[in-house]
Amino acid sequence: MEIRHAEPADYGRVIGRVNAWWGGRDMAPMLPRLFFVHFEATSYVLDDEDGQLAAFLIGFLSQADDDEAYIHFVGVAPERRGEGLGRRLYERFFDDAAEHGRTTVRCVTSPVNEASIAFHKALGFEVEKVAHDYDGPGEDRVLFVKRLG
Amino acid sequence: MEIRHAEPADYGRVIGRVNAWWGGRDMAPMLPRLFFVHFEATSYVLDDEDGQLAAFLIGFLSQADDDEAYIHFVGVAPERRGEGLGRRLYERFFDDAAEHGRTTVRCVTSPVNEASIAFHKALGFEVEKVAHDYDGPGEDRVLFVKRLG
Repeated sequence: MEIRHAEPADYGRVIGRVNAWWGGRDMAPMLPRLFFVHFEATSYVLDDEDGQLAAFLIGFLSQADDDEAYIHFVGVAPERRGEGLGRRLYERFFDDAAEHGRTTVRCVTSPVNEASIAFHKALGFEVEKVAHDYDGPGEDRVLFVKRLG
Repeated sequence: MEIRHAEPADYGRVIGRVNAWWGGRDMAPMLPRLFFVHFEATSYVLDDEDGQLAAFLIGFLSQADDDEAYIHFVGVAPERRGEGLGRRLYERFFDDAAEHGRTTVRCVTSPVNEASIAFHKALGFEVEKVAHDYDGPGEDRVLFVKRLG
C-alpha cells in the first residue's frame, strides 16, 4: 500500500467511512472539507489493494509558528488496526514537515482515549499537559509534542 | 472598537459565547482551538467598549493554492448585528490576505442561511455553486468566491 496525498475528491469517501469507524458518530463537524482542499500537501490517504480506504491523516503547517506543524485528524479502518498504518502516516508527515523546516509537531487527543495516548508515546510524542476544556466546555485534551530530528 | 488578531487566550471566551449566539448549539467540534493557535495572523476579534466579545472571524491562507485564502468561521453577537461589524472583519481579512499575495477568497455557508447568503453577496462574493453533501452527508453548502483588488 502506497501513501499518497489527500485530494478534495477523497473527502466524500473519508467522511462516509469515519462515521462508521467512530461507531456511527457524526464526524463531519470536526472534519469539514476545507482540510482536504487547502492542506493536501500535509494530508495523506492509504488505500488497500482493492482501492478501499484503509487509513488517512490530516495535518497542516502552523501559520503562527514557522517551526511547527500540527496533526488534526487520523483514522485507521477498524479491520486494519495493528498493522502499523498509523505509524506510516505519522512518519510520512514528520518527513514532510521537516522538509518544510518544521522542528516540532503537535497534536491533541482525549484523555479517555488510552489507546491513542499509548500510540502517541510509542511514536515519540511527549505529554505537555492535560488541558481542561481545551476544545470547548467539557472537551479536555492531552497535548502532545514531538521534536523532529 | 478596534479589530485585533485572535490569540489562543481568546478561545475560551469565543467558544463560550458562540454556543449562545447559535441558540445553544455545541459549536466546539466545528471550531477547535487549533484555529486560534495556528492561524492568528488571519483571525480577528472585536471587543466592545466593556471588553465583551462583539464579533470574531477565523480564516487562513490556503497551503494548496498560493493565490487563495479561506474564511472558516464568523460570528457577531446577536445584540450587535446590523452595525457593520461583520463587514469590518471581512474587509480586514481581505486586506491581510492581499498583503500575503492572495487574489481569491473563498468561504461556504448553508443554503438555508439566507441572511448569510445575502451578506456575502453584499460583500462582493459570487456564488460558484451549491454543492450537495459538501461538508458530509446532508451538509449541503453554498460555495462563495471573491476576487480581491
